[in-house]
Amino acid sequence: MTVVLPRGAAAPGPVREDGVLRHAEIGTLELESGFRLPGVRLAYETWGTLAPDGSNAVLVEHALTGDTHVASGRARPGAPADEQRAAEAGGWWEGLVGPGAAIDTDRWFVVCANIVGGCYGSTGPASPAPPEVDPEGRPWGSRFPMITIRDAVRAEEALADALGVGAWRLVIGGSMGGARALEWAVTVPDRVRACAVIAACAQSSAEQIAWGQAQNLAIRQDPDFRGGDYYDGPAPVAGLGLARRIAHVTYRSAAELHHRFGRTPQGERDVIGARPAERGRYQVESYLDHQASKLAGRFDANSYLVVNEALMSHDVARGRGTLEEALARASCEWLVAAVDSDRLYLPHESDVLAAALPGEVRRRTLTSPSGHDGFLIEGPQLGKLLVETVLRED
Amino acid sequence: MTVVLPRGAAAPGPVREDGVLRHAEIGTLELESGFRLPGVRLAYETWGTLAPDGSNAVLVEHALTGDTHVASGRARPGAPADEQRAAEAGGWWEGLVGPGAAIDTDRWFVVCANIVGGCYGSTGPASPAPPEVDPEGRPWGSRFPMITIRDAVRAEEALADALGVGAWRLVIGGSMGGARALEWAVTVPDRVRACAVIAACAQSSAEQIAWGQAQNLAIRQDPDFRGGDYYDGPAPVAGLGLARRIAHVTYRSAAELHHRFGRTPQGERDVIGARPAERGRYQVESYLDHQASKLAGRFDANSYLVVNEALMSHDVARGRGTLEEALARASCEWLVAAVDSDRLYLPHESDVLAAALPGEVRRRTLTSPSGHDGFLIEGPQLGKLLVETVLRED
Repeated sequence: MTVVLPRGAAAPGPVREDGVLRHAEIGTLELESGFRLPGVRLAYETWGTLAPDGSNAVLVEHALTGDTHVASGRARPGAPADEQRAAEAGGWWEGLVGPGAAIDTDRWFVVCANIVGGCYGSTGPASPAPPEVDPEGRPWGSRFPMITIRDAVRAEEALADALGVGAWRLVIGGSMGGARALEWAVTVPDRVRACAVIAACAQSSAEQIAWGQAQNLAIRQDPDFRGGDYYDGPAPVAGLGLARRIAHVTYRSAAELHHRFGRTPQGERDVIGARPAERGRYQVESYLDHQASKLAGRFDANSYLVVNEALMSHDVARGRGTLEEALARASCEWLVAAVDSDRLYLPHESDVLAAALPGEVRRRTLTSPSGHDGFLIEGPQLGKLLVETVLRED
Repeated sequence: MTVVLPRGAAAPGPVREDGVLRHAEIGTLELESGFRLPGVRLAYETWGTLAPDGSNAVLVEHALTGDTHVASGRARPGAPADEQRAAEAGGWWEGLVGPGAAIDTDRWFVVCANIVGGCYGSTGPASPAPPEVDPEGRPWGSRFPMITIRDAVRAEEALADALGVGAWRLVIGGSMGGARALEWAVTVPDRVRACAVIAACAQSSAEQIAWGQAQNLAIRQDPDFRGGDYYDGPAPVAGLGLARRIAHVTYRSAAELHHRFGRTPQGERDVIGARPAERGRYQVESYLDHQASKLAGRFDANSYLVVNEALMSHDVARGRGTLEEALARASCEWLVAAVDSDRLYLPHESDVLAAALPGEVRRRTLTSPSGHDGFLIEGPQLGKLLVETVLRED
């Protein structure tokens, strides 16, 4: 495998670059299904510097539609302006990761990779298929394989090799990131010292599968989806938008929606019209319309299907006996945290996981009115939990 | 207005007919929006006999995709075989309504009407538009107006007139039926003696509106929907099926889905496939597929939009001041019951309603693992509540 440095980048040296998108070529990935995915590239960013003994590496795993930009950073002096801007932009766990933050990048070498199948720089359905699959180099589209959480971990293991990381001091993630963190600790136990599973579970539940199915159908039933081979035409933005609306409601709480929006109309137009198409929207509809168009503007529908299917497939015990037997493979210490108002990844599921884990397990709760998204929003609380538990000074 | 007896029916006489579909012509309905809907017909069924003093009438209001067949009955001797079969078929509150049941049809004269805009015999989007709207008599389709819960009550008031019911001893309904029951007691207070609002609320919440929007978009984004004018082609069954999947998950509980289905695959096929389209389904997916095709086989997509929009519009206080001021118009006694595991109509919303109601209010809870659908499933519990409260012997 080869690490491909960004355009114009100097060879790795003493100048620290944080939050800059890079790519690693990891070759062929052997998938759980038996499918061999050739020519895989993983996008990733790093913050801080790997210690000579390699003991300070932290892997941060992003959630379903997340990207590699966990926190703002800084490109090397002289880097192109767009690279500087991208590095300095705020990230999705801004404040949790950075110099002096709970995950202190003056101390830890932090890595975040885009999941294989995603659309933030890693090989995914929108990537050109290799010549043996498509001599014309058209995108994978409908031919892109199913990826499991375990497959994603195997890809990231190759990235760890490339970065010279023997074992992670900590693997941490929320939601689908939590599923990946857990799967890391069980699939590659000798390379994980501590694992933080936030707002996630051991095995995707019937409820989570049901919502996943609805989201996937919303995309697949969009006439612009065309079975997944839509890259030469309009993207299925309406279907992806509907998928996001469904998901987004499950990510928040009914109480929060009530307090923020209630039944208030958006603007002046009456919500009672002669025909439904002629009525004004409610604020909560306008809010979800905004969430839908934001996602449709930044995410590829095929990648949404791939990562959603990966999450539906999440079962750390698959092929490994009972849940307890599966988890007994791991040898790290644990933080398991739930969001108290989460209605998608129920706190009870964190209890089930914590009860089945071996070794030292801290089961904690994030307090938030915002539901599942609390794992993103309540960064300061989570930081406090981390420094008290898996990142404490010994 | 005219009551239209079913084909071959005798004039009303001493022979009691229960659970037989009938129709009433109620003329033009003046809607909240100002739209005048001409030539409205309401489908309804009755059980039992109206007392000479009219004191024993009970109105049962159906839920979103419900019909008029609350319980089995019996057609008059000599009625056509299909009419007999239809009357004798089990209903959606079977056991709660019938001879000797909690709503005892040997004592009460029970009526259930299909909501205007529905597809079980009342005027709706699939009905032929009148000549002034469409000289060719094509279905209303996209031209059908928005109906509010209040509009539906006004239509049923005309049915009460036609049936000779001055005041209802009880109006009862669950979910959207509960919204209609509440609206009856507030819109026409002098015609309601008691009101039972089951698994419903005073004003549809942001959460309920959000789920309603997703369901409506699922239908509207189906290419077969064609803006609502699809009656000369294939129906938007995929969109309607997705709407049902979304709704159905909100109608059940995560715990029930977990206990019934977990992550179990449906059949032999592996849930990990080379491509998602090639993988086997989970049982919970198969279950939701079944719910989707069942509804798509029995319900019209335009009607789904009309009744869903009606429910989203539900606000008993619209134009009537505060919630307390609006409810102060009512003068009946009340049963307000929630299902303990309901995550769509939260028990808290029943508390809010009960606290704001005037007069004698009983706030009760149905115990069920099944979520919102518990209001349908837990008929015996509900019957017990009714005979202890609003139907008790004085």
